[in-house]
Amino acid sequence: MSFKITGTGSYIPKNIQKNKEFINSTFFNKNGSEIRTPNIETIEKFSSITGILERRYVDEDLNTSDIGFFAAVEAIKDSKVDPETIDYIIFAHNFGDVTSGSNQHEAMPSLAAKVKSKLKIKNPKCVSYDILFGCPGWIEGLIQAKAFISVGMASKCLVIGAETLSRVIDHYDRDSMIFADGAGATIIEKKNENGGILSHNSATYTFEGEAKMLYVGKSNNFKLKDKYIKMKGRKVYEFALKNVPQAMKECIDIAGVDINRLKKIFIHQANEKMDDAIIKRFYRLYKLRIPEGIMPMNIEYHGNSSVATIPTLYDQVLKNKKIGHTLSKGDIILFASVGAGMNINAITYQV
Amino acid sequence: MSFKITGTGSYIPKNIQKNKEFINSTFFNKNGSEIRTPNIETIEKFSSITGILERRYVDEDLNTSDIGFFAAVEAIKDSKVDPETIDYIIFAHNFGDVTSGSNQHEAMPSLAAKVKSKLKIKNPKCVSYDILFGCPGWIEGLIQAKAFISVGMASKCLVIGAETLSRVIDHYDRDSMIFADGAGATIIEKKNENGGILSHNSATYTFEGEAKMLYVGKSNNFKLKDKYIKMKGRKVYEFALKNVPQAMKECIDIAGVDINRLKKIFIHQANEKMDDAIIKRFYRLYKLRIPEGIMPMNIEYHGNSSVATIPTLYDQVLKNKKIGHTLSKGDIILFASVGAGMNINAITYQV
Repeated sequence: MSFKITGTGSYIPKNIQKNKEFINSTFFNKNGSEIRTPNIETIEKFSSITGILERRYVDEDLNTSDIGFFAAVEAIKDSKVDPETIDYIIFAHNFGDVTSGSNQHEAMPSLAAKVKSKLKIKNPKCVSYDILFGCPGWIEGLIQAKAFISVGMASKCLVIGAETLSRVIDHYDRDSMIFADGAGATIIEKKNENGGILSHNSATYTFEGEAKMLYVGKSNNFKLKDKYIKMKGRKVYEFALKNVPQAMKECIDIAGVDINRLKKIFIHQANEKMDDAIIKRFYRLYKLRIPEGIMPMNIEYHGNSSVATIPTLYDQVLKNKKIGHTLSKGDIILFASVGAGMNINAITYQV
Repeated sequence: MSFKITGTGSYIPKNIQKNKEFINSTFFNKNGSEIRTPNIETIEKFSSITGILERRYVDEDLNTSDIGFFAAVEAIKDSKVDPETIDYIIFAHNFGDVTSGSNQHEAMPSLAAKVKSKLKIKNPKCVSYDILFGCPGWIEGLIQAKAFISVGMASKCLVIGAETLSRVIDHYDRDSMIFADGAGATIIEKKNENGGILSHNSATYTFEGEAKMLYVGKSNNFKLKDKYIKMKGRKVYEFALKNVPQAMKECIDIAGVDINRLKKIFIHQANEKMDDAIIKRFYRLYKLRIPEGIMPMNIEYHGNSSVATIPTLYDQVLKNKKIGHTLSKGDIILFASVGAGMNINAITYQV
């Protein structure tokens, strides 16, 4: 039995927010003091670290469940599965639906149930739930789908990762420039052919204060009462560098795959400098240099859309929307992510 | 291989809110008009339908993750497992942490990660995630744990259901009297003995507007801007009566269990009249009368605490905290729930 991704879809929001559009922002430090560095310098430094030039925000009338649905429609079409034969809809997110102008995060009913409703699926045996696992939620959804297929509880699953972080950013925090909106979806099926998911690896770190590295917290502008997505950037960076390369290697080792056969690494598009450093350390574990073209990236134009970055990027590469990266049948790739929890996970996958 | 619950725990909030404490409430209809019926009549009618005399609310300084942690500590102690050997922490809820005085629902990091942090578990391979599946979330967590154990991804899982609905109720809505706070937790383990989970059954209904039966919506007092937990009571009632008894029977049938061997039914404590009607219809499917003492209930004193009602009640019966109901080794019982999604699920379990 194999676990194959038979369809992918993504939704790229229409509104482009370029870095220069933050030029008139007022940024504060976490201690509430105003940042005196001219914004032009702040933006240049931000861009050189993260690699982000622009990001996408959804239209005012759209929510996370809407864009998750758009991506799902594409993935279903791509896979050619009959929607009525889908056994699970697993929706990964962290903030639910946040209506424009609201500070509330709505997730009852689950976003998966909302997507199922929009897909007009009748079959009640298509079980629909949401998973909250930080940015690695979409990969974790695939791992859960694999378990359900493996044990005979499912043959076809729809796994969605979508987020509208534009609705939960603190406009007084420089970190707000990182975050973006997006949605990716995948159909994973039980198949009797080679390839598919070869191995997976998951972990949750909480023993050394990791649960407070990415969190919902107060604005840097102390006059505001609402809470927003916040991170301790340096701590996240150090945590990721320490733990992600080893977790990726473990995943490859479980699959028993020769590192030289690895064609691409689809890593969570969190921050270009961090992703580069992770890949460098990962290859250092094998005493190898980074192979050219190993890591597709779309963070320049998409920012960090949390759970959506990997399925969106994978969809773009598969459909040749991303210049310079292609995949062929039989290629072995690695999905890897890190985020709030702190959680880390990875999947070795053969196309 | 069997899947056995080896420990249970619950947290009952300290603050008792009696029905009479709603006597000075101002209630509005969904159309915004004030309800002119004297509150004493409203409360009496409410009590006769739901069976609720009082409910529990958490202290101001506690959140859902805190009370989930309290229940988890008890379940771990009860099971005698070494916390470092737990492979999964699965936390079912619908609103995350809602700090007293705030209208925001926080779930990043996941509540499961927060509990893991409080439990001081070092092992990063203890994967911690939240599941959103309406009131049936705790049962669904058990079903997922069973899948992970079955496929070799886990041997021991901690499944928590906790909610602080007192933080998300619309005080201008009579339905607010139904909702309560509570937490239940369970350790489920792989064992080589008879019994444990014999079968499960899950479903998500969305085709006929079910996703709008239990939802987050505006207050009946149109002056308020925030959204609260809302339900279309009659529709929920009709939906449940139509679909839950059949889903319960399917679950029993999958297990191949003679209905006469069923000792207790632990049904989601949503509303006493509804639960009675479900059980009546369930036995009617077998052309049987309701056996005496089949259905433990604690809704009189606990209200509807969503995901927490079943694990709390099960813990109370196992530990003889509930007069008149006891269980012995080998007894076959049924867990069954219905809630936002709309989702329905059930587990046939042998103690």
